[in-house]
Amino acid sequence: MAETVAVIGGTGPEGKGLAARFGHAGLKVIVGSRSAERGEEAAKEIREAAGGAVSGATNVDATALADTVLITLPYSGLKDTLPPLATALASKIVVSTVVPLQFTAGRASIMAIEDGSAAEETKRLLPGARVVGAFQNLAAHKLFDVSKALDADVIVTSDDRDALREVMQLAELIAGVRGVNGGPLQASRYVEGITALLVGVNRNYKTETSIKIAGI
Amino acid sequence: MAETVAVIGGTGPEGKGLAARFGHAGLKVIVGSRSAERGEEAAKEIREAAGGAVSGATNVDATALADTVLITLPYSGLKDTLPPLATALASKIVVSTVVPLQFTAGRASIMAIEDGSAAEETKRLLPGARVVGAFQNLAAHKLFDVSKALDADVIVTSDDRDALREVMQLAELIAGVRGVNGGPLQASRYVEGITALLVGVNRNYKTETSIKIAGI
Repeated sequence: MAETVAVIGGTGPEGKGLAARFGHAGLKVIVGSRSAERGEEAAKEIREAAGGAVSGATNVDATALADTVLITLPYSGLKDTLPPLATALASKIVVSTVVPLQFTAGRASIMAIEDGSAAEETKRLLPGARVVGAFQNLAAHKLFDVSKALDADVIVTSDDRDALREVMQLAELIAGVRGVNGGPLQASRYVEGITALLVGVNRNYKTETSIKIAGI
Repeated sequence: MAETVAVIGGTGPEGKGLAARFGHAGLKVIVGSRSAERGEEAAKEIREAAGGAVSGATNVDATALADTVLITLPYSGLKDTLPPLATALASKIVVSTVVPLQFTAGRASIMAIEDGSAAEETKRLLPGARVVGAFQNLAAHKLFDVSKALDADVIVTSDDRDALREVMQLAELIAGVRGVNGGPLQASRYVEGITALLVGVNRNYKTETSIKIAGI
């Protein structure tokens, strides 16, 4: 199991939420940003809200220090941010939480992207990394409030079985979350799609929903 | 609420399962097939297993007799079977349960299709119909055994709000099922994708799973 987790692009809502949960669970967490100052600023905000050993660094430094690296960038940032990290990320577990969402007239949909999913694109951009898809369907601000358990499954996909198992365990450090083996990385396109679906459901019901798999 | 439901392509496992549930719930059900004999044969099998007012007919006759029409054809059958029914289906509620699944080396995935989803293709092929997507994620043989309640949400999508509401009510005639408003028909692509995901999860866990939305 990872002892130090880096969150690349960790100053956004999803990154801060995951950093808060993993810091709260006792992991060492490094919030990565383009500037170390912005990383440290977000880390301070997280420490004050949730406690834990959370520090800030540049994305490059965060990558070097961690065993497991979560990518919480906006989709549009992958192609510029990831390639310079490819050498540092080789053989590390890299978790894509990214969803290529777009909004048209207020409705969420998934962009048509060449690789089929953000997770598969991440794998192409980081050929040596052990890429896993996970955490795409969790609501950011619910993550950030560590006082409340979630009620959600995290569907984990990867072509690397050991990495998949490790990330399922990582997911279960979050109170109220169960990790589910979603199969090969290719299936991450369906998991990313669920986020677009949930955005619509949330709008219809004026609430924040999550996904669960019944029958396991 | 529909009083008479036709199931086009109703001799396959999904069609028989839905026909059994709706017959069991007290609706009049007509199992459509290319030949009236095969429709009646499937209807007899369903009546013997589940009771109910289930009869067989050609797809054309079934369409004419019903208020609400479920399409349970294999995806590859849509483009030949639907256009001849377009006039009869104009202004009726037509429910696409279809998933454009393909299997490569035993793994399920969704075919790349031009319309984005089987439900949207159905709408293009039946321009006058009130097309709804639903029931894509339910396991056929669990449907057929009407003695056991399911434990599943049916995510319903449509651009026709009243039709969407009616199909949510229809879904809730199945014991253990909750209808969820999934938004516009375009979102059916994500619901169809969930089926590919669940096929993989079922394989990983050697069980049959279903999807639920938590937080509503």
